[in-house]
Amino acid sequence: MNSRTMSTKDVIDIALGTIKADIVLKNANLVNVSSGEIYETDIAIARGLIVGLGSYKGRKEIDATDTYAVPGLIDGHTHIEMSMLSVREFAKAVVPRGTTAVIDDLHEIANVLGVEGIQAMVEEARTTPLKVFCMAPSCVPSTDPSRGLETPGAQIGHEEIKELLSMDGVIGLAEVMNYSGVITKENEVWKKIEVAKAFKAIIDGHAPLLSGKALNAYVLSGAGSDHESVSYKEAREKLRLGMRVMVREGSAAKNLNAIAPLLNSIDTRNCMLVTDGDRTLRDLKVEGYLDHVLRRAIEEGIDPVKAVQLCTINPAQWFKLDDWLGSISPGKCADIVLLNNLENFEVDSVIVNGTTDWAPRTAYTYSYPHYGKSVKIRQLQPDDFAIKLERAKKARIIGHIEGELLTAEIAEELSGIDTARDILKIGVVERHHYTGNIGVGFVKGFGLKTGAVASSIAHDSHNIVVIGTNEEDMAFACNRLNAIGGGIVLCSEQKVVSELALPIAGLMSDKGLDDVAQKQRELEEQISEMGCKLQAPFITISFLALPVIPKLRITDKGLVDVENQKIVGIFYN
Amino acid sequence: MNSRTMSTKDVIDIALGTIKADIVLKNANLVNVSSGEIYETDIAIARGLIVGLGSYKGRKEIDATDTYAVPGLIDGHTHIEMSMLSVREFAKAVVPRGTTAVIDDLHEIANVLGVEGIQAMVEEARTTPLKVFCMAPSCVPSTDPSRGLETPGAQIGHEEIKELLSMDGVIGLAEVMNYSGVITKENEVWKKIEVAKAFKAIIDGHAPLLSGKALNAYVLSGAGSDHESVSYKEAREKLRLGMRVMVREGSAAKNLNAIAPLLNSIDTRNCMLVTDGDRTLRDLKVEGYLDHVLRRAIEEGIDPVKAVQLCTINPAQWFKLDDWLGSISPGKCADIVLLNNLENFEVDSVIVNGTTDWAPRTAYTYSYPHYGKSVKIRQLQPDDFAIKLERAKKARIIGHIEGELLTAEIAEELSGIDTARDILKIGVVERHHYTGNIGVGFVKGFGLKTGAVASSIAHDSHNIVVIGTNEEDMAFACNRLNAIGGGIVLCSEQKVVSELALPIAGLMSDKGLDDVAQKQRELEEQISEMGCKLQAPFITISFLALPVIPKLRITDKGLVDVENQKIVGIFYN
Repeated sequence: MNSRTMSTKDVIDIALGTIKADIVLKNANLVNVSSGEIYETDIAIARGLIVGLGSYKGRKEIDATDTYAVPGLIDGHTHIEMSMLSVREFAKAVVPRGTTAVIDDLHEIANVLGVEGIQAMVEEARTTPLKVFCMAPSCVPSTDPSRGLETPGAQIGHEEIKELLSMDGVIGLAEVMNYSGVITKENEVWKKIEVAKAFKAIIDGHAPLLSGKALNAYVLSGAGSDHESVSYKEAREKLRLGMRVMVREGSAAKNLNAIAPLLNSIDTRNCMLVTDGDRTLRDLKVEGYLDHVLRRAIEEGIDPVKAVQLCTINPAQWFKLDDWLGSISPGKCADIVLLNNLENFEVDSVIVNGTTDWAPRTAYTYSYPHYGKSVKIRQLQPDDFAIKLERAKKARIIGHIEGELLTAEIAEELSGIDTARDILKIGVVERHHYTGNIGVGFVKGFGLKTGAVASSIAHDSHNIVVIGTNEEDMAFACNRLNAIGGGIVLCSEQKVVSELALPIAGLMSDKGLDDVAQKQRELEEQISEMGCKLQAPFITISFLALPVIPKLRITDKGLVDVENQKIVGIFYN
Repeated sequence: MNSRTMSTKDVIDIALGTIKADIVLKNANLVNVSSGEIYETDIAIARGLIVGLGSYKGRKEIDATDTYAVPGLIDGHTHIEMSMLSVREFAKAVVPRGTTAVIDDLHEIANVLGVEGIQAMVEEARTTPLKVFCMAPSCVPSTDPSRGLETPGAQIGHEEIKELLSMDGVIGLAEVMNYSGVITKENEVWKKIEVAKAFKAIIDGHAPLLSGKALNAYVLSGAGSDHESVSYKEAREKLRLGMRVMVREGSAAKNLNAIAPLLNSIDTRNCMLVTDGDRTLRDLKVEGYLDHVLRRAIEEGIDPVKAVQLCTINPAQWFKLDDWLGSISPGKCADIVLLNNLENFEVDSVIVNGTTDWAPRTAYTYSYPHYGKSVKIRQLQPDDFAIKLERAKKARIIGHIEGELLTAEIAEELSGIDTARDILKIGVVERHHYTGNIGVGFVKGFGLKTGAVASSIAHDSHNIVVIGTNEEDMAFACNRLNAIGGGIVLCSEQKVVSELALPIAGLMSDKGLDDVAQKQRELEEQISEMGCKLQAPFITISFLALPVIPKLRITDKGLVDVENQKIVGIFYN
């Protein structure tokens, strides 16, 4: 990232044309996001920077006639960990498609590995062609630690926020999800906001469905952006209150169709297009990343130049990166995407830091703490998942609702696991500190008829979540997960059916997009064979342990009544 | 300025509506510069901040029905000293007209009093309702000091820039006028740029008529804005290269008419309207300040909302003040102008820091160095202006060209002052360090038939410049200027005809707009009576000593051949 701070004195003679540029893109149709125009020009590049527009000569000249030159795309809000790819492999997947920078909320790895994990990810990011700007996660763990509802791997308090904001590469406070804490003036969340303000750092918000006076109060806190709007009205209200509105178009959450009419009718300088990390590996492979979102925006009738601004100069200005990124003009980093076709965003080639030869060739040794060993549990036995039945009483059962993240609380009598009624056992095994904590309960609606499935992706604390048709397979799946150092394990009759190792924090693979997507497909096919017909079974599992989305969840401490933020028993009194 | 850093936690309950706001503007037509719309809403204000939009109750409620609420205007580029008013009196003149913030290049006072002068002006500014953000002047003195062409009061090198950028209230490096130095890689100007970059400070540019590769090179340096465009084409080229284009509309330089068609056809987020300090006292009184420029823009057919953006959110974004200024939304400073009429910008009332009661009432003691004593010369005698005539040779005479800042170099034989041929004597008397330096020469085209005129406003070094029909009156005018501590003196037969004292650095009055404008009119009437019929006689005098605008100038070191940057004799060899 050194071209941002380098003196440009040495390239002045190249701008003046007295020395040839390193590369000149001849006769490109420049999508000029500063003036909002498209016109033909040469683009001269030297030492990684754009040095001139007009007519230039270069040591290397690329005929760009009939191609469009747009600035490298910037995803204003993502979570790389959600791709299950390492930063290096993620970069390999998205840069060739035109995304050259992302603003990353390292929320997931922070829950597992804390500040050290973030540091390792920042360091890994530096070895990639992708520019990764990190936001210090604001809500780790997801619940108030004083309530003791779960055991995360790490906590990020306001002191850690201070530490993170002092780190090179960390530019702000990530989505302040605890909007109710902001409005009710909870101390810790306000301390984090005040630390961020003292650093003059960017503060991203997260205010789903917040409106009226509550939204005014939230904006007043300093949280300056939002990526949760699902309607025209919601987005307009946020924009009017001065927020930056990030329009999310992911694999699951698709908000563009609803919000495009707004983008077509108002000043869009304060709007962006983002993925929010919500791109499945399949979609990433087949459709693309932010390039896909851009195509979708143009499909929705947004003027192409405006659409490009939404993912270049607009995020650059919000994140105060516009001195270096987001536009093609002298002094800016030469991150340029050449397109054969603007409407379809058909990539011809990508230039990063002034070169087309940006793919890193050297091998890399991942420096994450507990790399390949992030699951720390003792050998489990079937008895660890035993539940003392109270037959006279009804049980609290977690009810999965297909297509939603909300769960139901179901009250039924039971005599243990009952695959006929689709009542399975669910466990959450603490995996960070050898506490031995195991929460056990029942879940309905998952569909598994045989075996068990365990995953170390379990928002937000990322303990092991395991669902099974019998305790033997549940214990086996967890022990196997321990052996492979985190990931996803599907087993039946104490044999592995399919598995995906995620050696980085139990969240990310060290393999490439094709391999991981292939493994994931295999897992999905197998779990379907075993009876689970859900649309996204592994995402479903991963959210069952998140005690901030109603109604009933489970953590390593037991069942959680989310609305009352307390641990409850399996059986009603 | 403390509402920028204050915690907003204490006003959350007001935003929530559980506690009444201090003031609520009821049913205002809000000009929402974030979304680019106008619609009706209440605006709730508390502790100097805007806390909510929507429907609010206040301890004080102002019926704003049928009025327009716009953010306080921000002049992105001015020089307060050029008004001859102190910051306090300048604020009194412009705030009631809707300008609540200015970005000020303290170039003039820096030439006289250096860092201490800037500090005093920053301190004075803090006592006013006007928000003054200072830019560290980049070219003090105007010429390369190593050439010894003039004696300024102070120098601002890169070390002083560092000192200034560390000061609270100084936010950037002012217009880098030395564009040729930038392009030819002169060390000192580059050091200043690199200091500013290290501070992540704003860097304003100044690139009149620069184009093509030279402009690319200049932009590459980091100078990010320009306020010198005089044509559609010039402004468009700068905008396309990523510069912020400040469109200047002053009393002398009027660029709006030429550039308005561009503003009507492109994305204007990177454009602003500015005065460049170019408002005569008369125009300030009669037409107004930035409010006048805004009216002019609307007259030129620019959409009113866009026009308001050009002097609110746009400068706020460029100067990184948009977390606090430039829009009306929760958390922003409550600097609001209520208008009876948007098109004519007819001000109903101005709210500053959340109150209409913003006029400072306490007396103020100016703390400028050498206050009222900034002229430091010994008693002058007529002989000090003697010139040894060389009758066989032609003399180099400074030729005034009416309506231009350029001067001519006229070669004529002469036998001394000759009012019949309009050849007068001109002197520049060093006034900062008692050096005793006096440069003497001849000037043609000024028209004075009797007496002399002396001024301590003499760009950029602000020594005394004196023009006379005889040496007795020249000495008298200078001595009188010394006695009154700087300003402008018009005398005849060794009697004061009219005078204006400028006790602050010999540049600024401590009187109000009405008084100073009245004095200036008197001086203009009197000098016209005495034969000088120029449009702007005192501005003309003030530029005759500026050795950076061709062709022939005079400093305390003698005549200066500007193009060759050297001192030349009065007589040709």
